[in-house]
Amino acid sequence: MYELGVVYRNIRRADPDVAARLGAFGAATVHEAMGRLGLMKPYMRPVYAGAQASGTAVTVLLHPGDNWMLHVAAEHIRPGDIVVAAVTAECADGYFGDLLATSFKARGANGLVIDGGVRDARVLTEMKFPVWSKAISAKGTVKATLGSVNIPVVCAGALITPGDVIVADDDGVVVVPQALAQKTLEAAAAREANEGEKRAKLAAGVLGLDMYNMREPLQKAGLKYID
Amino acid sequence: MYELGVVYRNIRRADPDVAARLGAFGAATVHEAMGRLGLMKPYMRPVYAGAQASGTAVTVLLHPGDNWMLHVAAEHIRPGDIVVAAVTAECADGYFGDLLATSFKARGANGLVIDGGVRDARVLTEMKFPVWSKAISAKGTVKATLGSVNIPVVCAGALITPGDVIVADDDGVVVVPQALAQKTLEAAAAREANEGEKRAKLAAGVLGLDMYNMREPLQKAGLKYID
Amino acid sequence: MYELGVVYRNIRRADPDVAARLGAFGAATVHEAMGRLGLMKPYMRPVYAGAQASGTAVTVLLHPGDNWMLHVAAEHIRPGDIVVAAVTAECADGYFGDLLATSFKARGANGLVIDGGVRDARVLTEMKFPVWSKAISAKGTVKATLGSVNIPVVCAGALITPGDVIVADDDGVVVVPQALAQKTLEAAAAREANEGEKRAKLAAGVLGLDMYNMREPLQKAGLKYID
Amino acid sequence: MYELGVVYRNIRRADPDVAARLGAFGAATVHEAMGRLGLMKPYMRPVYAGAQASGTAVTVLLHPGDNWMLHVAAEHIRPGDIVVAAVTAECADGYFGDLLATSFKARGANGLVIDGGVRDARVLTEMKFPVWSKAISAKGTVKATLGSVNIPVVCAGALITPGDVIVADDDGVVVVPQALAQKTLEAAAAREANEGEKRAKLAAGVLGLDMYNMREPLQKAGLKYID
Amino acid sequence: MYELGVVYRNIRRADPDVAARLGAFGAATVHEAMGRLGLMKPYMRPVYAGAQASGTAVTVLLHPGDNWMLHVAAEHIRPGDIVVAAVTAECADGYFGDLLATSFKARGANGLVIDGGVRDARVLTEMKFPVWSKAISAKGTVKATLGSVNIPVVCAGALITPGDVIVADDDGVVVVPQALAQKTLEAAAAREANEGEKRAKLAAGVLGLDMYNMREPLQKAGLKYID
Amino acid sequence: MYELGVVYRNIRRADPDVAARLGAFGAATVHEAMGRLGLMKPYMRPVYAGAQASGTAVTVLLHPGDNWMLHVAAEHIRPGDIVVAAVTAECADGYFGDLLATSFKARGANGLVIDGGVRDARVLTEMKFPVWSKAISAKGTVKATLGSVNIPVVCAGALITPGDVIVADDDGVVVVPQALAQKTLEAAAAREANEGEKRAKLAAGVLGLDMYNMREPLQKAGLKYID
Repeated sequence: MYELGVVYRNIRRADPDVAARLGAFGAATVHEAMGRLGLMKPYMRPVYAGAQASGTAVTVLLHPGDNWMLHVAAEHIRPGDIVVAAVTAECADGYFGDLLATSFKARGANGLVIDGGVRDARVLTEMKFPVWSKAISAKGTVKATLGSVNIPVVCAGALITPGDVIVADDDGVVVVPQALAQKTLEAAAAREANEGEKRAKLAAGVLGLDMYNMREPLQKAGLKYID
Repeated sequence: MYELGVVYRNIRRADPDVAARLGAFGAATVHEAMGRLGLMKPYMRPVYAGAQASGTAVTVLLHPGDNWMLHVAAEHIRPGDIVVAAVTAECADGYFGDLLATSFKARGANGLVIDGGVRDARVLTEMKFPVWSKAISAKGTVKATLGSVNIPVVCAGALITPGDVIVADDDGVVVVPQALAQKTLEAAAAREANEGEKRAKLAAGVLGLDMYNMREPLQKAGLKYID
Repeated sequence: MYELGVVYRNIRRADPDVAARLGAFGAATVHEAMGRLGLMKPYMRPVYAGAQASGTAVTVLLHPGDNWMLHVAAEHIRPGDIVVAAVTAECADGYFGDLLATSFKARGANGLVIDGGVRDARVLTEMKFPVWSKAISAKGTVKATLGSVNIPVVCAGALITPGDVIVADDDGVVVVPQALAQKTLEAAAAREANEGEKRAKLAAGVLGLDMYNMREPLQKAGLKYID
Repeated sequence: MYELGVVYRNIRRADPDVAARLGAFGAATVHEAMGRLGLMKPYMRPVYAGAQASGTAVTVLLHPGDNWMLHVAAEHIRPGDIVVAAVTAECADGYFGDLLATSFKARGANGLVIDGGVRDARVLTEMKFPVWSKAISAKGTVKATLGSVNIPVVCAGALITPGDVIVADDDGVVVVPQALAQKTLEAAAAREANEGEKRAKLAAGVLGLDMYNMREPLQKAGLKYID
Repeated sequence: MYELGVVYRNIRRADPDVAARLGAFGAATVHEAMGRLGLMKPYMRPVYAGAQASGTAVTVLLHPGDNWMLHVAAEHIRPGDIVVAAVTAECADGYFGDLLATSFKARGANGLVIDGGVRDARVLTEMKFPVWSKAISAKGTVKATLGSVNIPVVCAGALITPGDVIVADDDGVVVVPQALAQKTLEAAAAREANEGEKRAKLAAGVLGLDMYNMREPLQKAGLKYID
Repeated sequence: MYELGVVYRNIRRADPDVAARLGAFGAATVHEAMGRLGLMKPYMRPVYAGAQASGTAVTVLLHPGDNWMLHVAAEHIRPGDIVVAAVTAECADGYFGDLLATSFKARGANGLVIDGGVRDARVLTEMKFPVWSKAISAKGTVKATLGSVNIPVVCAGALITPGDVIVADDDGVVVVPQALAQKTLEAAAAREANEGEKRAKLAAGVLGLDMYNMREPLQKAGLKYID
């Protein structure tokens, strides 16, 4: 399934501007714009509330309890990337901490998404380096076994191809395949176009029932009101 | 078990003043005052730390991945209500986000309790609209199948009858049946009456062992001290 | 396995100064310095983000749904202690709240670590009394059955002997056996000695690959770069 | 929410013949016939594969780690009943074992459904006394605190009123409210009426696509076939 | 990420003979032969103990609570296939039961692997139709939303491309990409070649320490024996 | 906390006859006889239903994903031992399969208890080599890092000292400290002495209420009967 021991140096990345603009819409809107696909499992949580990031994926495949390949990946980060790390078995050790965060940040990474644990949570919070992970754990890791960098990986139930767009915030992590990025951006923009107007109406007390014309379909579906 | 496709328009609500005063005691005290009953399962967590709410229950029964009935429920919210949403199967999709929150707030809702997921967590936090849920997930839902509004529901292991009092904070969500609301309020007040005095004693270094006269029962139970 | 119904009044504590200095290194560093041992399971989380504590362990064995022995333990707390509570079966009720926290604080406790639930989360946060627990739950407990104080206990997968050093923060809870405290302190200090220098290099864009001389071992392990 | 310390001696039970005939259809068919409602959460598993039971519910409310009320309930079992036990908090101790099973069987019980743990799994299997539970655990319980018998309870996410029909097998546990038992029986019978014919067709290689006339709706929904 | 509403009719399948021979080695050996990759998460369990199957993958993408596409997939099953079903969100409803099993069997399917629930567990066991699933649940599903057939899917953490080899037994489910099937078969055969000899030695009391020449590496690693 | 890289060759074992006789009582009775202590967490399940074993503990400390020390432990097994394996972090890989089982059996082991995964479940079942584990997984492990043999370990929440008695069956795994083995045996025998008589009474329809004289304490506790 996975190719082990390889690093792909030249990957084609999605347009960074598209990635940034998708990020501005947030995970929920982008996920809707994708047809409700591409969301990682909801156990992926930000290390600190309010974290937001988007970027192009540099992927890493790790072995359980071994973070060697995160160091290899660092060399291949370009400004605007988000590192996405999968692990070949479930293991919530702390693969990533403040030193790697310092390095990733210096290389221009916009964040990390890892289907495992991280540590130095307080420092990551202070640094405002956004990380989405499955767990927080002080348990360190070794550097002993080769994984790979920039191969397609499965992370938290989603398939990520290097260069795909990642959009992550408090609501979770969404993957937008490179080929769909532009189209998804347009769909997201269309969704948001009249959100402000809708919000104003709802805030004024207009019901969604009326705003979305739901009364007729509800009646057709057989809804009964009982006084 | 459940009546599907119905909306009860006229429910009898607990006294809103009693609901507000119960809320001031908080979930832990009210739960004690209920004889340690009525607590939802502890997987129900507030979307933001420090959330507090109380009110009278408007109940909703949803189908997995379908939030249609939340829109129907909005029309039946009165100021001081808390919407309590159950789902007919376990599904942690994001049934509720910032638009519905805007609408619920405009209708006067004090909060939402949902045995499923919600999204737009950051906006909910900024709006200070208190929500207790099982998960946070960007995954949206459809509007396709009829559930019900204001029927008795089981939510996170607790039975809620429309009009019951809900008290929720960082410690969880407690349901006070309407018929027990006044009595529970009195019991909660009695519990709290000398809490300040107790706190002062304990803060001064007095031991609970002495303040609660536990030394004799401990000795009778056979506790041995070894030097 | 456990001795029930006993309180050991005189325990030998680790050097409080060593405990304090270990605390300054944090859980992740101390855990590494221990040879990656002694960490409680990662389900142990602080009640509020940013909590930090270290101290010498006063241990308590509780029965499910019964917090009687926490009151007994209070009498045996000395300034600088951390209370570590194990439960004889899995039960996430709220064994500890603001009154006990007031008492523990007055006795000089630096915090609580409990393989169960706690309540009054908001007040604990306001008091800045640091607590690590498995759950937050409004559910109260009874005072009916004898456990023990200051016997060796298993808490969240770790063995704690009374007087051991506990180091806890956002990354989890580490136990340092008394006999290893001084040696662990030295190992932690050695680890940290050149962290500042490393951080500066990484922040300047130096790669871990070069700083840690990983290129040669990676090549030996067979890593292939593909352009 | 719950009335504590009471035993309702005279409950109205669903027709035992209807209960037996519902049992013959099995949990999956009955659940469909109910409109896909009334199913307990899927963590409820039979102690031995192939267990099957149906009957009228005698309900019990237990406290965590306390099985006293199961003894009280035994007196109120009539032939054809199934005991349904809820617990006021999550606790997977072993509340029920071979002695209680012997007693329940002697009283004519058809089985036990418990939102907690049981023990003596091997003997229960040998006795062929069917039990659905959340866990198997050797941990025994005390007899100290009053719960209730034959009050409405919430068990594994479902509401059970005494006298309701319970249908349980390898697929889970379904609750049929007494008032709906006859109607559900008819719906189940209707569902099953042509199942044999359908099965024969499918076994002969006829596709569900054709048997259920799905080709047109699939086309309308936009399904594309790609060669 | 996924293409929705499409059915690929012509997929290239791995050599059925290779699939059968891989199946004979079992999941554990094949997983080792793959370099310890390609295993689905261990929550995937057989419906009955002792189930064994191998074959070529026909993939299906389902929506939560909707099994429509399983009917579509049935038409595309060829003898020797195993259906692998992914779901776009976590939902443990019972998507598959005895009627679909009858149909799949009639089409020549060797089994089903589904990242969701199934029902009619007793009948599946009697039919000896092998199924690996995440849950058993009586909860039925609707037929309302288009997914896809024979697109690449992520199922229980593994990526499956249509036509890949699936090997499943009590130890779990392994995916062998079509391109690696022959090579994996050879590696599995090599692993097993002298297993019989090894087993005989171990059965005669020879230690793995000696048979695998571990004593020297253990000594080098610093193992100390204490009498 | 743990001593790494050591093997204690000479441990003092509990009396094998006492271990065998404790085993005959089963986990539930022995756990009661211990005062309801010493039970491992209920996630520890037998690989096949009906498994039963008892013996003296040979302990092993493993690193996640590494089974090297199980080979080292094999040399130190004496007839009548049960190997108890702890892992320094949560990792459900398959550390143990048919070859190690053949070796352990040849050395006279009565079974294995492991806080991790095992594989070759079908062969273990055929061999009737009893194993209690946290998971079943085809995922193999490496042999790279030193743990220890015959040091005290924490396994599934229980503390095991080498030589302690282990009693395991379908109900779980109980640890009896060596020093308490004889006393626990007597307590277990006393508990069982009149079980046959009790069972006969209950089978004849006598109620536990009467047999255990519970009516008076129930009345004192305030139980109310309502007709």
